[in-house]
Amino acid sequence: MPFTVKALQKTGPDQPFRVTEIERRDPRPNDVVIAIKAAGICHSDIHTIRNEWGEAPFPLCVGHEIAGVVEAVGDGVTRHQVGDRVGVGCLVDSCGECEQCAIDQEQSCLNGSVGTYGAKDVDGTITQGGYSQKVVVDERFVLSIPDSLGFDVAAPLLCAGITTYSPLARWGAGEQVATEDGERAKRVAVLGLGGLGHMGVQIAAKMGAEVTVLSRSLKKEQLAIDLGATRMLATTEDDFFRKHRGEFDLILNTISADIPVDKYLSLLTPRGVMAVVGLPPQKQPVGFGALIGGSKVLAGSNIGGIKETQEMLDFCAEHDIAAHIETIGVTEVDAMYDKVVAGEVYFRAVIDTATFEDVEVEHSA
Amino acid sequence: MPFTVKALQKTGPDQPFRVTEIERRDPRPNDVVIAIKAAGICHSDIHTIRNEWGEAPFPLCVGHEIAGVVEAVGDGVTRHQVGDRVGVGCLVDSCGECEQCAIDQEQSCLNGSVGTYGAKDVDGTITQGGYSQKVVVDERFVLSIPDSLGFDVAAPLLCAGITTYSPLARWGAGEQVATEDGERAKRVAVLGLGGLGHMGVQIAAKMGAEVTVLSRSLKKEQLAIDLGATRMLATTEDDFFRKHRGEFDLILNTISADIPVDKYLSLLTPRGVMAVVGLPPQKQPVGFGALIGGSKVLAGSNIGGIKETQEMLDFCAEHDIAAHIETIGVTEVDAMYDKVVAGEVYFRAVIDTATFEDVEVEHSA
Repeated sequence: MPFTVKALQKTGPDQPFRVTEIERRDPRPNDVVIAIKAAGICHSDIHTIRNEWGEAPFPLCVGHEIAGVVEAVGDGVTRHQVGDRVGVGCLVDSCGECEQCAIDQEQSCLNGSVGTYGAKDVDGTITQGGYSQKVVVDERFVLSIPDSLGFDVAAPLLCAGITTYSPLARWGAGEQVATEDGERAKRVAVLGLGGLGHMGVQIAAKMGAEVTVLSRSLKKEQLAIDLGATRMLATTEDDFFRKHRGEFDLILNTISADIPVDKYLSLLTPRGVMAVVGLPPQKQPVGFGALIGGSKVLAGSNIGGIKETQEMLDFCAEHDIAAHIETIGVTEVDAMYDKVVAGEVYFRAVIDTATFEDVEVEHSA
Repeated sequence: MPFTVKALQKTGPDQPFRVTEIERRDPRPNDVVIAIKAAGICHSDIHTIRNEWGEAPFPLCVGHEIAGVVEAVGDGVTRHQVGDRVGVGCLVDSCGECEQCAIDQEQSCLNGSVGTYGAKDVDGTITQGGYSQKVVVDERFVLSIPDSLGFDVAAPLLCAGITTYSPLARWGAGEQVATEDGERAKRVAVLGLGGLGHMGVQIAAKMGAEVTVLSRSLKKEQLAIDLGATRMLATTEDDFFRKHRGEFDLILNTISADIPVDKYLSLLTPRGVMAVVGLPPQKQPVGFGALIGGSKVLAGSNIGGIKETQEMLDFCAEHDIAAHIETIGVTEVDAMYDKVVAGEVYFRAVIDTATFEDVEVEHSA
């Protein structure tokens, strides 16, 4: 039987969040019912529900960094059982049969993967995300959260963690580089130190890279060091691009603003890679000469597949990596959005969904 | 003792080529003296000597697609002997000690590789290229040309061959792609069918890829098929980008004009790669969203190292790959440049250096 749960929804881009009741589907044989404990606030949530990425399907509950406990399972579920600590990220379904699903890249499903919120589900309904008490998800898209990771610090791994882990793994942040004398760790620069960047620094450092954080100022220098960076550099310093020319094997660009791409490419070693996970609104001018000289790579990266997401969670548990968070209650989300946009959160806000208990459901105006 | 040989030089961007005498150095212990048999005409030669890439150091002899026979060797030479069939490409020296040289990427030498023409050599002189009777080159930069390859059809491999082979190899054109039913050959698109493209088609096809040629018209369709492509598509056809969305695992972009980069990225499969070897004069606008969606890659590629160049020559010999050429004499180069720029050469012009015999040295005006 379908059932209702409390959720935070907005009815329009300029409306505040309200506690409403939404319906969750009757679990199918392969479904897992999850009692949500923590839901991370991702910048994508804000872009989406403010219509910055196009018209959102209101009323909408966002959130795709979900951690909780299995409350019930369908008859056919084999991977999870009641009481398991689990998580859900940006995806809740895919065809499971195409070339991309066959290689564990469900996020690129050729028949269309289903996003955790605001997407048309296989049954035609619009998916509702994690700012909610419970969610029902096909077991293939439910991750296991290792015991050593708290729900609150694990939730952001489901998006910010995998978004940075996947390009760092693909482009070999943990590999050694052969040198004239033997080998050295890869020199990885993380551009921007926000929700994504603070995960990227920790993951790259634990993979074995020598990590530098690049930002406009050194305001967060001590935080960068605490996260595992060996240093932080201000890109506004005199002659920055000349002084650091050819220094980095890999740049992870987490910022979503315009950047002088060619100048950043000049910071790379030959065959170096700039992986972009932040989406600036405008197209960026790229000189092909800046790519051809040194045979360099500009690569996009979109979250990661389910298998790799589990690998990331296990890696984080093994290496004591977690999100650095600020916890809030369900009535504080609007105010927190403004703080996130202002860059004042170090580094991720997480909603404690237990606070739904204290709030009555509001009826539509 | 230094010695003189005939060469084609220009004294300025608007001057015609003239047959002059240039000095070649007294062979050092590791040097090979090569009697040049054939010299390919690369578009780079034209850009350089017409000052389209900046002020060239005149008087200058260009040419970096050189095939010939070893005429003499220094005392320390071990890799080649008199009578060997050899070639020289875009490089004639590098430090041999840096991180890039250590991994056989001499073209990216951190201390500066020396180009075959117009570059400052280690002795301070300006290198003079292959439109000449002889050249003296350090044995480390002298390639072996397999017996089955004629000098004339081998010469263009030293630049056009390696320029296309290297990105095709790096990005796995010959690898199989896992599918829901097993595996399939990679689908490679070669954009542009000129000197570079006609090598790219042959090499990709022999690596095992299913090759499509993309061009504005189907004028060269039969040529494309003859080179090993399974089909040619006109990018000007109605709805081209929608119809072929997500079709190619790898696009080798050989053209040096502006292209709608995002539209070409949309032709790629997830995790697909667009490798660029053509250099448009303007920066190209790239939407990071077109890279992030599907985790796609835009990669530059600059020739290849010496080890890989030898691998390419051996691969071409093994698979009966050679440049398709039009041979000319030393007095026909100016006219041929105009034909090359007009795209009227199918597909590479090669100078028969034996024709130097028939021409007197001109004295400076």
